[in-house]
Amino acid sequence: MEYTFSNGLRDLQPSAIREILKYASVPGVAALSAGNPAPEAFPVKEIADISDRLLRTRSIDVLQYGATEGYTPLREHLKTYMHDKYGVGGEGDMVLITSGGQQVMELAMKTLCNPGDVVICESPSFIGSLNSFRSLGARLCGVPLEADGMNLDVLEATLKAEPNARFIYTIPNFQNPAGVTTSFEKRKAIYALAKQYGVMIVEDNPYGDLRFAGENVPAIKTLDTEGLVIYAGSFSKVMSSGMRVGFAIGPQPVVAKMVVAKQGEDVHTNLWAQMVCHEFMTTCDYEAHLDRLRGIYKVKAELMMALLDEHIVPAGINYQKVEGGLFILCQLPETVDVAEFCSLAVKEHKVAVVPGGAFAVNDEVLHSFRVNYSTPTNEVMQEGVQRLGAFARSYIK
Amino acid sequence: MEYTFSNGLRDLQPSAIREILKYASVPGVAALSAGNPAPEAFPVKEIADISDRLLRTRSIDVLQYGATEGYTPLREHLKTYMHDKYGVGGEGDMVLITSGGQQVMELAMKTLCNPGDVVICESPSFIGSLNSFRSLGARLCGVPLEADGMNLDVLEATLKAEPNARFIYTIPNFQNPAGVTTSFEKRKAIYALAKQYGVMIVEDNPYGDLRFAGENVPAIKTLDTEGLVIYAGSFSKVMSSGMRVGFAIGPQPVVAKMVVAKQGEDVHTNLWAQMVCHEFMTTCDYEAHLDRLRGIYKVKAELMMALLDEHIVPAGINYQKVEGGLFILCQLPETVDVAEFCSLAVKEHKVAVVPGGAFAVNDEVLHSFRVNYSTPTNEVMQEGVQRLGAFARSYIK
Repeated sequence: MEYTFSNGLRDLQPSAIREILKYASVPGVAALSAGNPAPEAFPVKEIADISDRLLRTRSIDVLQYGATEGYTPLREHLKTYMHDKYGVGGEGDMVLITSGGQQVMELAMKTLCNPGDVVICESPSFIGSLNSFRSLGARLCGVPLEADGMNLDVLEATLKAEPNARFIYTIPNFQNPAGVTTSFEKRKAIYALAKQYGVMIVEDNPYGDLRFAGENVPAIKTLDTEGLVIYAGSFSKVMSSGMRVGFAIGPQPVVAKMVVAKQGEDVHTNLWAQMVCHEFMTTCDYEAHLDRLRGIYKVKAELMMALLDEHIVPAGINYQKVEGGLFILCQLPETVDVAEFCSLAVKEHKVAVVPGGAFAVNDEVLHSFRVNYSTPTNEVMQEGVQRLGAFARSYIK
Repeated sequence: MEYTFSNGLRDLQPSAIREILKYASVPGVAALSAGNPAPEAFPVKEIADISDRLLRTRSIDVLQYGATEGYTPLREHLKTYMHDKYGVGGEGDMVLITSGGQQVMELAMKTLCNPGDVVICESPSFIGSLNSFRSLGARLCGVPLEADGMNLDVLEATLKAEPNARFIYTIPNFQNPAGVTTSFEKRKAIYALAKQYGVMIVEDNPYGDLRFAGENVPAIKTLDTEGLVIYAGSFSKVMSSGMRVGFAIGPQPVVAKMVVAKQGEDVHTNLWAQMVCHEFMTTCDYEAHLDRLRGIYKVKAELMMALLDEHIVPAGINYQKVEGGLFILCQLPETVDVAEFCSLAVKEHKVAVVPGGAFAVNDEVLHSFRVNYSTPTNEVMQEGVQRLGAFARSYIK
């Protein structure tokens, strides 16, 4: 049979960086390309103990069907926790537990947009979300991401030019891939523009708890007097990625529609994982756990930055210091062919990084590559950055 | 803010039967309305033991990110198992692990259809799948379901009339809500029509392993020489619903696109659940477990049918005997207002059943209600059917 596919999926490839990722798993290659949490960041013993207790004492609750909205005690705990700790979520909001943070983006898109509608994204941005929007037929408009967040002039021009814009997608803390944190001033300006032009905001915050330096910047959701913001949180970086638990906090009518959409997708999120998250947050010292994670990533990020300073910057490659998250974006001189650079790096010099083009919103040329410091061991980081530096000094004339 | 929603979600309500389901949870109400597996059907001890072992010895594998396609050992085991036991899946096919069987339908729809494209469904059919198709903007065409499967004349007329038909959705074993099993002759005819008209088939088989009487009928997928059939399997009814693990077996190019779609939805299915399913299938006596389940449901189904014969049939309500699955559909005389009957049954007589209209593909009037025998205890079944019979005899003049 000749297969034909939906417009959204037809041209969508698994991943533009699949070849590099394939090489990244070859033994001997220093993979700075991944985005996995550090294995030592998982609270393994606590999860095993909680899981065992749940399966011995409340097995039917764990194994039976649950509500699409999510496990009620987890929803209630998150409502209070996110409100009291971060000022996120108020009277008009509702909490929905999702199968990883990614599902919030997909459900928001499915609920708010028809094919051809516009989603405004930071450029560059996270390929997983971009592809999620594309798979449902969104037309993406990129707004250049600067050192303190989106370029507001371009954002406003885009809102003016695109009456079918439905929401602005932003990762305000330690953006993937850029590592950038949007300033509070820009958060206020983005919110004001969304209000002025009657569009929503999807605020994706998987890395916010991983701040190891500087001051926390309040979420855009804290400004949300009008019910414009769907906030996406995740347990993937702070407890376990394999569990696939995230959550949305957003205006009740919108999140209620997302529940209907989720019902047709996976009925509800794995209950074991929801219950483990709830027990971990309420019976263990969750704040001490987050402190421990920040400690782990502080050491790894500082090592990565020291290595970049020593080996990469002298080759004419710049980067912006980060205060949290998992990624750093390195800027190559504009004369360099980034795709070739990254391809040679992995094939001939056994160090894998992700070319900026993978994060392009449309076809914009990005003279950058992303490095990750959460997944590799310190030894791999050291070896990888050294190799990359040696290659870069010979490659960049 | 005034919220506007996508065309697919705009008119989709959480569930037409929400009010009845709300009453069904009131203490004292005999709920014959659910569709949950019997709690005693879960292999609780085995799952607890496997889970404990996995979390003590392979914790990082359980907790870290995994591949979108699914946990490789489970995919490989299912490929062999489904082929050797049922003749399902061949050289051109690929296995994808999904977050419950439901996700197969959603991914197939997202991958194959644009909004406005037609999906051909049995009438009545499972509301979860119908809403999944609707949420993505499908136009649904219903084909009346007879005692041995779809009406083939209507199916062919629909295929002729609808050049935008993209696939036929069928639950060939112990259909939900009708309990009907499609005969092998009709399966062959449906496949031949799909081939002739160039449409695919989504074969949803969550109940196939729950046959407690009669002979197994080969899956439509066993006939699939042309690569037309996406087969959907599920662990929800045979291991645990709360785990949310299902799988697709279908033509490689189509399932590969479904992988791209899934990546944008939930990245991958909860790994703990995938690994538990794999360990359970390979280290426990899986066939003995299935035999045990069939034993449980045989007893419950036979009790339900005996109760219906005693209390319901004398009131002028008919039903077709079932040989497996979880549901029986009861036919009321055409003079009866089904919605009112079901509403009075729960509000005034404390017995909850689901009106057939909940499973209507479009607005067809269905003079039926669904009863479930897997969830209620034997005592609740007894009490509920007695009450329903007494009410029916007084209500149906």
